[in-house]
Amino acid sequence: MNGIEMLQPLAPIAVSMGDPAGIGPEIVVKAVAALAGNEHAGLDLVVHGDPACLGREAARLGLPMPPRVEPIADLVTNPPGALPIGMDSAGSGDVAFRCIVAATRTCLDGRARALVTAPISKAAMQAAGHQYPGHTELLAELAGDVPVRMMLANHELRTVLVSIHVSLRDALAAVTFGNVLDTIRITDTSLRRIGLPHAPRIAVAGLNPHAGEGGLFGREEIDVIAPAIAAARAQGIDVRGPIAPDTVFMRARGLAEFDVVVAMYHDQGLIPVKYLGLDQGVNTTLGLPFIRTSPDHGTAYDIAGRGIADPSSLIEAIRQADLFSRRPVR
Amino acid sequence: MNGIEMLQPLAPIAVSMGDPAGIGPEIVVKAVAALAGNEHAGLDLVVHGDPACLGREAARLGLPMPPRVEPIADLVTNPPGALPIGMDSAGSGDVAFRCIVAATRTCLDGRARALVTAPISKAAMQAAGHQYPGHTELLAELAGDVPVRMMLANHELRTVLVSIHVSLRDALAAVTFGNVLDTIRITDTSLRRIGLPHAPRIAVAGLNPHAGEGGLFGREEIDVIAPAIAAARAQGIDVRGPIAPDTVFMRARGLAEFDVVVAMYHDQGLIPVKYLGLDQGVNTTLGLPFIRTSPDHGTAYDIAGRGIADPSSLIEAIRQADLFSRRPVR
Repeated sequence: MNGIEMLQPLAPIAVSMGDPAGIGPEIVVKAVAALAGNEHAGLDLVVHGDPACLGREAARLGLPMPPRVEPIADLVTNPPGALPIGMDSAGSGDVAFRCIVAATRTCLDGRARALVTAPISKAAMQAAGHQYPGHTELLAELAGDVPVRMMLANHELRTVLVSIHVSLRDALAAVTFGNVLDTIRITDTSLRRIGLPHAPRIAVAGLNPHAGEGGLFGREEIDVIAPAIAAARAQGIDVRGPIAPDTVFMRARGLAEFDVVVAMYHDQGLIPVKYLGLDQGVNTTLGLPFIRTSPDHGTAYDIAGRGIADPSSLIEAIRQADLFSRRPVR
Repeated sequence: MNGIEMLQPLAPIAVSMGDPAGIGPEIVVKAVAALAGNEHAGLDLVVHGDPACLGREAARLGLPMPPRVEPIADLVTNPPGALPIGMDSAGSGDVAFRCIVAATRTCLDGRARALVTAPISKAAMQAAGHQYPGHTELLAELAGDVPVRMMLANHELRTVLVSIHVSLRDALAAVTFGNVLDTIRITDTSLRRIGLPHAPRIAVAGLNPHAGEGGLFGREEIDVIAPAIAAARAQGIDVRGPIAPDTVFMRARGLAEFDVVVAMYHDQGLIPVKYLGLDQGVNTTLGLPFIRTSPDHGTAYDIAGRGIADPSSLIEAIRQADLFSRRPVR
């Protein structure tokens, strides 16, 4: 960081409201209220959503309306404030979709420095004709089809996944030299932005038990993972492995020995991140031209509209988005 | 449990000394000393090993010699007390092998009610001509090639594995109706022996992310795992699932909602059991005609002979063997 960068005012952080039928509007109102007063430190939040939904939640909760709301445009049908709560509908899916697109555009054109997304319903979004498996794929497309990776983190462990929502059989096929190397590179570039006192210390998990035990329990470590690690090291990245999957997360716990673990498949990384049941897990998309975070829970239709949703994970997502976007992209 | 069973004296627990070049003799001496005084409660330990090794450790540590030692027979070469410490040798592998065989025989013929094994070196045992990947395979053969399963447990989580030391690709192939059903059955039969106030509550993890998300991320849950669970339920077993792998262990933590989780492959179960780095993990072999436990660490050659090895995991293994063998097999 140099002096000129420090003097530049920070752009705001864009927050998408999420599906209006879920807990998104409620936790957005709660999170913005909880973080009020941090604007002087550069934590300026712009909510992309429907003022009627947000105002209804603010009134119900006795909290202030978020001071900066960008209303979503072109809602020709179904005023969002009138949509049914706690169930999927094409109307709510369309609102959720438009909130994301509008917020993303502000990140892509530099009006915002990071994106925080409240939960959406994939089924509702698809009912509205927007065929994306989730936020990540939509964001990657809006950003020009860049390769992205999912990072899950809580206060004691970060993990970046080589693949996410595919069968374990397909995940095995995704463990290629290119995918592993890309994951390491994206992880390194992204983690450099949080101002660690050293280059990010990256551990790479093996795929097989005991990281293959020298080829006895599988050869992916020898044929694919170790060469990708060697290539990354040759590029100056501080990365070690492959390490036995059943011990690498224990070693990374508390961020003591490693800052992040590259996991070979969805559950390898998510089992340890979720094991302690921490309510402040954050999902971060790495590889986009801006940082994007989200809470690690869904729309929670069962408690939507009751005022009891916990904003902790969204607040932590905003804090992480802030942390990752104070320094310029390399 | 009926009155007649309660009045029968309990048979002792057999303890194999492990590889004489590792920490086995030291932690056996420490564990027996730590548990002294529990004989009146039926915790009677018979160590199968070499009196010279055990006596040397007892003298070094200033602890009593284990009161009941069955010397291993037929050691025509290499008196074990003279073997090198901290390295593999055919001599030490042969001693380790003979300790296991002798201790197992006492369990098979009813002179002991459970087996606790101190750590061995697979390489040393194989150098001595005994070609087994580990304890489990040797014990299964001695018991007549019965199907066995590995359970890993600490004070807050138990998990039983469908497969263990194979590549992840081979582990996928091992997720069959028969293997999953056998694992559930063996788990139920074994857990019934520890005297829970209810039938063992068994959770079964899915194989794929989100347990397949209705077939979108893999079909093993639909085609194999759910039918095996249904078959087990039809036999009166309290088993539920398949449950998303990234949440089932969190739910089972603290043994609150489930008593045990059936995991589809090695690392799925071992990542959460090892994540907290607890030093009292216990490895239990289920399916044998007797219960067998072991600490979840190895020979620790790097600290062998220095008097600093921690016997906690072995002590916990003895306690678990006791817990599992106070009631008769159904």
